[in-house]
Amino acid sequence: MNKWIEKLREKDKRTIARIITKIEKQDPDKDQLLELLFPLTGNAFLVGITGSPGAGKSSLLDRLIETIRAEQLSVGVIAVDPTSPFTGGAILGDRVRMTKHALDEQVFIRSMGSRGSLGGLARATKEAVWVLDAAGYDVILIETVGVGQAELDIMHVADTVALVMNPGAGDVVQVFKAGIMEIADMYIVNKADLPGAARLVAEIEELLDLIQQSTKWRRPIVQTVTHENRGIEECWQQLQRHRQYLQESGEWIKRRQDHMQLEVWEIIEDAFRQFLRREMGKKEYKYELEQVAQRKKVPHQVARQYLQKIFPALREDEK
Amino acid sequence: MNKWIEKLREKDKRTIARIITKIEKQDPDKDQLLELLFPLTGNAFLVGITGSPGAGKSSLLDRLIETIRAEQLSVGVIAVDPTSPFTGGAILGDRVRMTKHALDEQVFIRSMGSRGSLGGLARATKEAVWVLDAAGYDVILIETVGVGQAELDIMHVADTVALVMNPGAGDVVQVFKAGIMEIADMYIVNKADLPGAARLVAEIEELLDLIQQSTKWRRPIVQTVTHENRGIEECWQQLQRHRQYLQESGEWIKRRQDHMQLEVWEIIEDAFRQFLRREMGKKEYKYELEQVAQRKKVPHQVARQYLQKIFPALREDEK
Repeated sequence: MNKWIEKLREKDKRTIARIITKIEKQDPDKDQLLELLFPLTGNAFLVGITGSPGAGKSSLLDRLIETIRAEQLSVGVIAVDPTSPFTGGAILGDRVRMTKHALDEQVFIRSMGSRGSLGGLARATKEAVWVLDAAGYDVILIETVGVGQAELDIMHVADTVALVMNPGAGDVVQVFKAGIMEIADMYIVNKADLPGAARLVAEIEELLDLIQQSTKWRRPIVQTVTHENRGIEECWQQLQRHRQYLQESGEWIKRRQDHMQLEVWEIIEDAFRQFLRREMGKKEYKYELEQVAQRKKVPHQVARQYLQKIFPALREDEK
Repeated sequence: MNKWIEKLREKDKRTIARIITKIEKQDPDKDQLLELLFPLTGNAFLVGITGSPGAGKSSLLDRLIETIRAEQLSVGVIAVDPTSPFTGGAILGDRVRMTKHALDEQVFIRSMGSRGSLGGLARATKEAVWVLDAAGYDVILIETVGVGQAELDIMHVADTVALVMNPGAGDVVQVFKAGIMEIADMYIVNKADLPGAARLVAEIEELLDLIQQSTKWRRPIVQTVTHENRGIEECWQQLQRHRQYLQESGEWIKRRQDHMQLEVWEIIEDAFRQFLRREMGKKEYKYELEQVAQRKKVPHQVARQYLQKIFPALREDEK
């Protein structure tokens, strides 16, 4: 196993890919691998990039990788395909576009599928980020479609989150209502050569004034046109500026602590869920569930009884 | 409180709306209301209708309501707005279209918002279905966008699930891959006047052959054109045929038992999650989390320690 970690530290792509696959597939080695990996993490700059399907995230990432590489920094990318089967379709095509970095030893790109990891998508993705972090990539870009809770949960792993929007897509108010604007640390108006870019920027600025600012960071808005390579350099500068802000303000440590707390919660919840599935398959329990199916007992009653039985800590807590 | 239930049984729309709002807002009365309601449930035919944004679900529902009403049956509708802020936009417009049933005493339509119910969307929706069931609606239609896990979870409440697709949308294979086809009991090819309808039907049939059939039910494919009112009658007949199949095969009872088991699980998980949030805010725990943030301990280790401490049942289970 130590051999694997050695290879990982050399950024051996095959080893990295294999470790991520083991994690995705819940391989028996997974826990031990994570224990060896984890102490090596914490050095990468974790950047989340989210936005609607079709917002041009992949092309943008492609350009961003070039910009970061020009500074001799290494880049890892975790691209999460949407859990939903109904969206996208251009997704595979986008991935293909990124293959031009395939020969660059200092760039590693990995797609995380949705099928089979239902419910566990966020977990597997976060663990994949650890792998790249442990491997020593300087910057890790995490791309997700901003659809669904699992995808948004993934953003909790990032130091800095950028939200990609397009002129004329008319989704600003919806994004605002859903609280996504608060999650983002900066906004990228991509396809800024399309009509309506200036209006979108103005709209974002207006809504920004409505967001209660708990920090001193004023979220910047960057306009980009990927096929002209316009704005990409500024994008990278703003990302770095946010990193610097986090570090100087002390928020860097706070954020990372919060993220780790969430990690621990998630792991506990997963373990509990698995326990529950096993436990409730037992015979004594079948009878109670039948009572519920026959509407003789309310689900809440049965749940409460059960919790009190298996879970003395909760019982004491309620007193 | 009993007064409320009385009014509910009279299908008093204001009372129904209020009770659902109380549930959505986690009102202190919620638990007691549910306990009074629950024994009254179990009589409605619960139909889930899911599909991509823009598949024309709302217009279809509109027509379906008319068809069901023509048979003197009462109809409740729970329409779930997508959690995602990035999709849809026509959603509000769709809702408006359905208002023509607003004056019909035997039709109740309710939209469940996404904002504020993050994570709890599925729960609140299921409980709203109970309210309509207890009120005595004969048929309850549950409409969700097939995007995200929460939306798919909602489908577990339904006796019969219909998946709405469109010609030329090219999403059949993706839907199949994501396992959504297995969830559905019938397929509705809506906008069947568009080119490619016959091809879509053929594709669905082909993929159906690949699905391992655990039951004798052969999933029908119905073609509909809402603005011509074409296929709607057949839709309703197929839904009823599936209901009859469930009842005759004994699957009806099995499904409902499975659903109730899920309900109980969910409630237990929610309670556990809330307990965890409180517990882990405690001082003794802060130190451990800091150790994780400093990469001195692995999240999995801390989670395991914690579980063993608060949760003796799990400890015994692992022996």
